[in-house]
This record gives sequence, C-alpha cells and structure tokens, in this order.
Amino acid sequence: MVNFESYTPTRVVFGKGTESQVGELIRAQGGTKVLVHFGGRSAKASGLLDRVLTALDQAGLPHVELGGVVPNPRLSKVREGIELARREGVDFLLAVGGGSVIDSSKAIGYGTGYQGDVWDFYSGKAKPAACLPVGCVLTISAAGSEMSNSSVITNEESWEKRGCNSDLCRPRFAVMNPELTYSLPAYQTASGCVDILSHTIERYFSGPETVEPTDSMAEGLLRTVLDAAPRAVRKPDDYEARAAIMWAGSLSHNGLTGCGRGGEGRVGDWSCHQLEHELSGMFDVTHGAGLAAVWGAWSRYVMDAAPARFARFARNVMGVADQGDDTKTALAGIAAFEDFLRSIHMPTNIHELGVDLTDEQIDELTWKCTFYGKRDIGSFKVLKAEDIKAVYRLAR
Amino acid sequence: MVNFESYTPTRVVFGKGTESQVGELIRAQGGTKVLVHFGGRSAKASGLLDRVLTALDQAGLPHVELGGVVPNPRLSKVREGIELARREGVDFLLAVGGGSVIDSSKAIGYGTGYQGDVWDFYSGKAKPAACLPVGCVLTISAAGSEMSNSSVITNEESWEKRGCNSDLCRPRFAVMNPELTYSLPAYQTASGCVDILSHTIERYFSGPETVEPTDSMAEGLLRTVLDAAPRAVRKPDDYEARAAIMWAGSLSHNGLTGCGRGGEGRVGDWSCHQLEHELSGMFDVTHGAGLAAVWGAWSRYVMDAAPARFARFARNVMGVADQGDDTKTALAGIAAFEDFLRSIHMPTNIHELGVDLTDEQIDELTWKCTFYGKRDIGSFKVLKAEDIKAVYRLAR
Repeated sequence: MVNFESYTPTRVVFGKGTESQVGELIRAQGGTKVLVHFGGRSAKASGLLDRVLTALDQAGLPHVELGGVVPNPRLSKVREGIELARREGVDFLLAVGGGSVIDSSKAIGYGTGYQGDVWDFYSGKAKPAACLPVGCVLTISAAGSEMSNSSVITNEESWEKRGCNSDLCRPRFAVMNPELTYSLPAYQTASGCVDILSHTIERYFSGPETVEPTDSMAEGLLRTVLDAAPRAVRKPDDYEARAAIMWAGSLSHNGLTGCGRGGEGRVGDWSCHQLEHELSGMFDVTHGAGLAAVWGAWSRYVMDAAPARFARFARNVMGVADQGDDTKTALAGIAAFEDFLRSIHMPTNIHELGVDLTDEQIDELTWKCTFYGKRDIGSFKVLKAEDIKAVYRLAR
Repeated sequence: MVNFESYTPTRVVFGKGTESQVGELIRAQGGTKVLVHFGGRSAKASGLLDRVLTALDQAGLPHVELGGVVPNPRLSKVREGIELARREGVDFLLAVGGGSVIDSSKAIGYGTGYQGDVWDFYSGKAKPAACLPVGCVLTISAAGSEMSNSSVITNEESWEKRGCNSDLCRPRFAVMNPELTYSLPAYQTASGCVDILSHTIERYFSGPETVEPTDSMAEGLLRTVLDAAPRAVRKPDDYEARAAIMWAGSLSHNGLTGCGRGGEGRVGDWSCHQLEHELSGMFDVTHGAGLAAVWGAWSRYVMDAAPARFARFARNVMGVADQGDDTKTALAGIAAFEDFLRSIHMPTNIHELGVDLTDEQIDELTWKCTFYGKRDIGSFKVLKAEDIKAVYRLAR
C-alpha cells in the first residue's frame, strides 16, 4: 500500500424527500444568498426546481436562478454565472442536476472571487486559491461530481475540454434522493452505470498490485452496480436499485477506491477515459456508452501486463469460475463484462456506437490522445501512439 | 435502504513518515498554539513524541504537553487538559495515541469553551455547541475514534463510563503511519482487530435486511481484517498487514458500514458492545478480548431471528460452503469465526478471559446492561433481561 491522502468532507443527505432540507443545509454552511444552477427543462418539468426554491424561501434564503447548463458544460455559461453571482452578491452555489451542472457550479465558484479569467484554472495558467461553497441536489447517477474534487469545462471558443482538480471545490453537501432519477431514460441510466463502474475499474487497474481493503471494497461496489443496473433499466422506479447505483456512484469517484494504489505515482489507469474523451469530442457520443465501446478492446490489449489482476477481476467481480490459468480466466471475465454491457443495451465496440472509424480518423484520435505527440497514456500498461492505434482498431 | 446521512470530514494522511506533516496540517486548520495530548511512556520511549514536537517546532507552532491518559480515559485528566488549554490559550488539540487519547482530546475540546462542567455533555445534561479542533497521530488500530463522532469518558467519582456523540468532535485530520503500530504486543494487536471487526459486525447485524453497496463493502472490510490479523500477530512488522488493519479500522467506525441500515431507526445492534461494556466495567478486561468472549454466545442466541443473514455472513465473510439450509450454514459460519478468534489467541468464552462468572454476577451484569431495568438492548433481536442472562450463561 503506497502512502495516500483521503478527504471526503461532503455531507451526504441520502434518501426520499431529502431535497426539502436544502434550506437548512445552506444555512448551516453560513450561506445567505444562493445562486441556483440547473440544466434544461427536466428540473422544471418534474417540479423539482419548484420544491427546491420553496425550501429556500422557507429558510428565508434569497436566491437567483441560472439554467441552461448543457452536457459538456460550457465556459460561456460559467462566465454568465460568475457575472450573475458577483452582481447579486451570492455567497452559496446550489447545483440542481447531474455532473455537468455541478461542474459548472464549481467553475463559477472558482471564478467569482478571482480577478483574472476563470479559464486560467482549466488551462493550467493558475491554481485556484478559493471557491465559493457549492452544494448539490443530484438528479443523475454517473459522474460522481457530487463528492469529487474535479470539474471539467468545455471552452467553446477553442473546443478544448479541460479539468481542474482541487479540494476547494468539493461540495459542502450532496442531497441524494434516488427517486429523482426515476425519470432518466434507460439509455442514460445504463450509460451512467458504465461511467460509475469505470471510475472504480480505472482505479482497480492502476497496476498489478493488490491493495486491501481497497480491492475488496471496490469489488463490492462493482458487483452492486452490475446487479442493480439491469434492474433499474428494466424498472425505472426500482428504489433499491436506484439507491444502490446512486450511492455506489458517489463512492466510486470520491477517492475511496483509489486509496493506497498507484505505485508509480498515478492513481488509476484512465486510458479508457482518454480514449473515450477523444471519441466523444469528435462524434459527440454519450460518455458512458463510449467507455463501454472501448473497454473490451483495451482490456484484451493490456491484459498480458498482469493476467493475474484480470483473473481476480473475473473471479471476484464477474463471478467467473477459475479456467485453469490466469489468462483464460481473465479472458472469460472480459467476455462476461461484455455480456453485462449487452444486457443493458450498451455497445461493446465503436461500430455499435453508430460510428465507423476510418484509418485517418484513428490517426487523428491517437494524435489527440497523446496530446499532439507529447505523452503516453495509462499505467496498468503504458500505451504509446502505436498501442493507442491498435486499441482503436480492435475496438472499431 | 433507509434514509441516512454520511459525514466523514477528517483528512486522512496515511503512510510511512506521515507524522512529520503534523505542523503543516495544523497550520492549514488555522491552529496557532497546540496542546499535545498523549498516554504513557510508549509515545516517549519510541521517539514518536519527539518527532511530533520537532515537526511543530519546525512549523513555528508553540505547544504544551499533557500526558498520562489511561485506557478508559478519565474525567480528571480531561479537566486537567481543559484548565491547561484555557490557561495557555491553546486553539488546537493534537492527540498522539489511540482511542483513549483521542477521546480525551475530544472531551477537552468540548470543555474548553464551555462555561459549565464538561461532564454535562456525557451525562446528557447538555449538548455541545462547539469543540476546539482536534487532530491526531494514531498509534493503535482499534477504536476508530480517529474518524468517528464519538468520545467515551469514565467519571472516576461515580465510575460511570459515558459517551457523547457529535459531528463537532470529528478530527480535522488523522495521521496514520502503520509502522507506529509495530511495537504493539500481540494481545493488543489481536484485541484491536476484534474491536475493528465488531464495529462492522454490529452494523452488519442491525437487522435482517440486505443493503447494497454497504453489505458488500462491509464484507470486504471484514475479510481484509480476518486475513491481516493473523499476519500482524505473527509478524509485528508486516507493513501490508498493519496498513490493511489500520485503514480498515477507520472505515469500520466512520459510519460507512452503517449507511442505509437501521430500518427500526437504530444503526447497529450493539448488544455485544453492551454485554462487554459491563464485563469490562466489573473485571477490567481488554475491550476487544471481551467482545471476542461474548460474540459466539450472542450469535447462537440471536441467529434464529434471521438465519439467512447469518448464512450470508458465513458464505461471504467466512468463506463457508453452503450447508444445505440457512441455519446449518449460519452455525458453520459462527464456528469458523470462533476458529479465527482462536487462531489469534483470543477467547471464545468468558472463562477463557480469566473470569468465572457466578449466577449473582450474571444478575448484576444484566441489571447494569438494562440500565437498571429501564431498557432492552439490541436490534437484530431485541434482548430483554431474561435474554441477556441467557447469553451471559451461554458465554461463561
């Protein structure tokens, strides 16, 4: 086990009806004026936004609203939020939505008290020194932003998508009512589940080493989502399934499943995220579906770096019986995971995403993956440009 | 899954050499003058106290020291600490030790800014409204106080042992270097492991219900300690075993393994803790060893309330093969846990603790357990006075 830090200060308020507590929660954090940030029509149509605003009114908290956050949240909206927050003297940001809304709120939090351009924090030009407090009412189980230290923003002037990580932006509280996810379409539910699984899987395959209790807990989280995902897809109002997915989603990305990993200094492999990142940049695919499309190819390509690790995954997560040797067991586990993906109508290759990659497109994706020739990716097996091309070819 | 709150704000700094960071950690919390609280000679003899004081000096943090905390920490020492903290204008409390030292520090934290008597918070006369910030350098894996909201103090005037729970006392940071536990005697190591296991087991047996992902993570934590405990007992400087136990110890009592449980309003059964509490009050036995001595009897007595739950424990934690029916599987799991206890030289009954209970003593223990006839205990199966007597008889 390598040295690590774990810091998860977010107060989680989980369960039915908990959105009615937002007023008290903000008051407990010292908030006196709130910017309520949200996405599109669903928060309004469902009545959730009204319930939240009523709770703020009941707590005597003045508020302003800013909707219109889109998936892959935009810098222009962040700037609009910063201006609004300054003009209105807001001292608390309440995100009502999923990862995009929370990430946009975090960016507004960074920018409001900063003299320069908020993009500085995402381009790497500056490090945030402060962030307005952020709280959230979660409506989508997927990104894990409700407990994480990260925020990803897209600059639509340059079409760059960049992240900024800092403990300053970890939400002060996260209100999680699984019922709020009942209305998600099956495809979004399934994609969210793949995103959750992948947050733990990326960390699980940091390298070949065993780390307890982190491994056992990670395997438990994975089995939980593997079991609950088909149930939530089949029956959108299955409370136990929705609750299991929602809580697993937060625990999969708050750092818990990375504790003690990363012998080479990096926690998590993150190759699949990188491969998908470029894919969704070029073809606007849903993040979780994109991850599903590349995982099998990546796994088969890197598995020989440590078959025993994949064999453990096969046995402890996928419930595959030992096949006599690690490689065979590992391959059976990968196939079992693909069977799971099919069972929730997720793609297992890029063609099934609706994209038929040309060789030229693979070259371009690879060029971007390597940050224009400047880096390799991955840690379980380090992938150079030629490897990345090979994985895209296997996946198409 | 029932509604729950989860709040674990403690910054964990885990690994070799991390005690050198205490100065910066206190500075980051705004501390300017530190009371260093510790137990007996071991912190001094090992050189740890010197290293900690040096780190404070290097950070330019003035400090005063107060040693002499004993197991079952005493109210008189707490009062001494409160007086010292007030006199010296201390604004940060650093506990260097195990659960007793941390609990004593939390009590000093409550009392320093309070006009009345600190015992008010433990007797239930008042609720704490504030607590000086507490940080810790952990030297014993057992009580879990390094991340918990609880503190237990013994009033040696009345020989009452009482707890006070509040999020205000959750440590701001916990420095955990597993190497600091190398010098623990085997008996203390084993007792600590039983305490850790029992914090998860008490919650696991809140009731018959399945709660995912909580159950799977709890099982992972339990398997981790079952695997690591014999290794640490056999080889005190087995870093991986010590690290696994230390991290599992914190996660077993920071609330994680209770999330979503407690259909009847109470998270955790806690009967074994109660049965042990009276036993150690009367015979001064080590907490973990006392828990080991009563667990088998408790399990066999309550198992019929939900054999399926114990059968799951048997399969998923103890690795017992299905015995055809739940009751048989459950009993095999209980026996396997007792085999584990024997393997780390822990008692499986009260006689092996060195105590031969008389019927009169059982009556007295039971009377105390029921809080002088005022309450029942437990939630997996509610135990009335007659049940409690029966369990003590089975366990003796």
